[in-house]
Amino acid sequence: MKTTIPTVKGTRDFYPEEMAVRAWLLGKIRKVSEMYGYQEYEGPFLERLDLYAAKSGEELVNKQSYVFEDRGGDRITLRPELTPSLARMVAQRQNELAFPARWWMFGPFWRYERPQKGRTREFFQWNIDMLGANTPECDAEMIAIAVSLFRELGLPADKVRIAVNSRKLLNDELAALGMPEDLRKEVIHIIDRRDKLPPKDWEDYVLGTGITTGQMQGIYIMLKDEQLWQKSEELRRVFAVLDQMGMSEYVEFDPGVIRGLDYYTGVVFEAQARAGGRAIFGGGHYDNLISAVGGNQLPATGFAMGDVMITVLLKEYGLIPDLQLVPADVFITAFDEDSLADSFALSAELRAAGLKVVVYPEAVKLQKQLKFADRMGIRFVVIAGPDERAAGQVTVKDLLSRTQETVDRASAASAIRKMLAQAAPV
Amino acid sequence: MKTTIPTVKGTRDFYPEEMAVRAWLLGKIRKVSEMYGYQEYEGPFLERLDLYAAKSGEELVNKQSYVFEDRGGDRITLRPELTPSLARMVAQRQNELAFPARWWMFGPFWRYERPQKGRTREFFQWNIDMLGANTPECDAEMIAIAVSLFRELGLPADKVRIAVNSRKLLNDELAALGMPEDLRKEVIHIIDRRDKLPPKDWEDYVLGTGITTGQMQGIYIMLKDEQLWQKSEELRRVFAVLDQMGMSEYVEFDPGVIRGLDYYTGVVFEAQARAGGRAIFGGGHYDNLISAVGGNQLPATGFAMGDVMITVLLKEYGLIPDLQLVPADVFITAFDEDSLADSFALSAELRAAGLKVVVYPEAVKLQKQLKFADRMGIRFVVIAGPDERAAGQVTVKDLLSRTQETVDRASAASAIRKMLAQAAPV
Repeated sequence: MKTTIPTVKGTRDFYPEEMAVRAWLLGKIRKVSEMYGYQEYEGPFLERLDLYAAKSGEELVNKQSYVFEDRGGDRITLRPELTPSLARMVAQRQNELAFPARWWMFGPFWRYERPQKGRTREFFQWNIDMLGANTPECDAEMIAIAVSLFRELGLPADKVRIAVNSRKLLNDELAALGMPEDLRKEVIHIIDRRDKLPPKDWEDYVLGTGITTGQMQGIYIMLKDEQLWQKSEELRRVFAVLDQMGMSEYVEFDPGVIRGLDYYTGVVFEAQARAGGRAIFGGGHYDNLISAVGGNQLPATGFAMGDVMITVLLKEYGLIPDLQLVPADVFITAFDEDSLADSFALSAELRAAGLKVVVYPEAVKLQKQLKFADRMGIRFVVIAGPDERAAGQVTVKDLLSRTQETVDRASAASAIRKMLAQAAPV
Repeated sequence: MKTTIPTVKGTRDFYPEEMAVRAWLLGKIRKVSEMYGYQEYEGPFLERLDLYAAKSGEELVNKQSYVFEDRGGDRITLRPELTPSLARMVAQRQNELAFPARWWMFGPFWRYERPQKGRTREFFQWNIDMLGANTPECDAEMIAIAVSLFRELGLPADKVRIAVNSRKLLNDELAALGMPEDLRKEVIHIIDRRDKLPPKDWEDYVLGTGITTGQMQGIYIMLKDEQLWQKSEELRRVFAVLDQMGMSEYVEFDPGVIRGLDYYTGVVFEAQARAGGRAIFGGGHYDNLISAVGGNQLPATGFAMGDVMITVLLKEYGLIPDLQLVPADVFITAFDEDSLADSFALSAELRAAGLKVVVYPEAVKLQKQLKFADRMGIRFVVIAGPDERAAGQVTVKDLLSRTQETVDRASAASAIRKMLAQAAPV
């Protein structure tokens, strides 16, 4: 075979089998989003770079985004995340919308990263956010939604966890160590990167910012303090709600969780696979993003989950069901070229009765046609040869029960419906 | 209010109301695709420019595509159409797939065109194709699918039509006028552009290619010959099938229909609004695209419909139903801050019983909460004040029937389900 034109690195083809998996995952996401009363929306795929420059953070904007000039000279970005678009949309209609607004979406995103297992450059992401309310219970609801998805997917609490922290708490702790505001912001970012450097290098890096060894010691103590959350009223309330909702088995306080995006201001959380600590998704509370993109101050909270890592994990744990790809109820054979149009007419009759119907569109050997029907998993085969046509009849073969019957053409649909309704023979 | 960051020209925000319309349209598209036994798939959004250079045509590739270099220096295109990606995917697995393959998808595309009514730069498109069979009946099936969608959407044959032609027939006619192959290809493109120029300019343009005035006369006669289709066996068969399927009221032969893409080789068709002749979608038969992107020769046929023009028309004709955006069955009020966690616990109980539930996440005045529930159209409001909590009860208000009852908390879900099942009072 010749060489096909290559695909772009980090993109994926979704053949019907892969598409069925994505559709199944989206079905679960939709179900959970709707259980909690969230409404579906969608933003544009292209946005101006300055939308992200407002708050997303240096790494995402300058290193990971696809940015280009369009034919008119505008600087365009393939969206690397949705929250800034959501903030813009809410800011645009802030006087018309009813708050709290609960919105979700599922769509494509792009980040120029090194493709690896669990990461592609083009990926799908579920975004779910609540805007316009400001209690810790709102953050708890986001975590509850995450837990509900895990349960819906069959992922138990010994496989995944949701690690929760508060940027406000961290900030207060760093202030108590005597750090000025600018330095605190930098230190929070440095804490986020501590898994990316050897411990000694990281320590040198921290001390290089002007932090004293005493403050450094304080950071270490803070990062190991599993009871630190008790100092935070918001975290106490978040954990209390999740406990009352019967979800605490999934939830843990983790003072080391930061999340990379600049706009988080309060509770932050990250779902991880317990095996290897791989991040599945993250989110948090953001108070200033709507005002940063031109609206009035509006508190919000939400999270985003990519489709790639969760699918890797579900495969690892054998949790993706056997998705049947049967395209139709009925397969109509082609007898000869002269009667092809009549086979298509028959298909229209059966579709009018609500059946999903495929016609073989070429008068090849019957054996080849039946093999195709079998390979596609279609249960009923309808055959109309010259004798049957003359008598106004068709033969219906049930490939599952290996029976067949000849019926009047006009009653073929109801005969098939009756057989479909009967319990499939073992 | 401050100025929000502007959107990119030609992109759209889908607030829940607009998203509901798109979801409704996609539901109709999915239903029709499945009636005919087509399987859902999806290609990448980013492709290499040379994939389109293979066959899509000069205008689409060089003038309308978004092309950019990524951070690694590769020339990337935001897909302007799907058929080349489909051809590549089929070419890649040509030895494994079962043919005829019937596939459909719905996703985003990008073209750098002047935005106007019925056209955006970022749009959604339904693609549906049959690959690996080569009878005119395959082309007829594509047109039948289009008719089924129109019927499903409530668009009658006096509002829309599907104009059908054959590139093969045109080519044969031009050959009979004595034109060599290269010139025929150019003339076919020129015929496609005749509505874009004043008649005199167009005529000068045609004569400029080296065509004689006699040939010019022949083209005019051809373009007015409504019976020309009888010379084409494939068109005779296409019209016969559509007639037998009861669909000919929508279908007309039109010798002027070309469709812009280079890869069409046989039957071509275009759906149009009868008012103004606005193009709704187009498609046709393509024999050489799979081999052009690296596969073996494989005949195929299909079409693509954007979401923008069809939505404009459906709005014009008042055919978009009143889509209710009610996000939940049940609204739980917040009594005070101390009982907020318990309201969330109650929501988890009701969700476990299969209800869609929204909690008001702040202990504001009850009147404000009820107003919100009413605005969101949520029918049942559940209130649990201190007395009810002490008694293990909740009060369920039915905002539709304006009745309320107090029930045991444990039986609240079944009480609501019972009220939901009852016919709504007038």
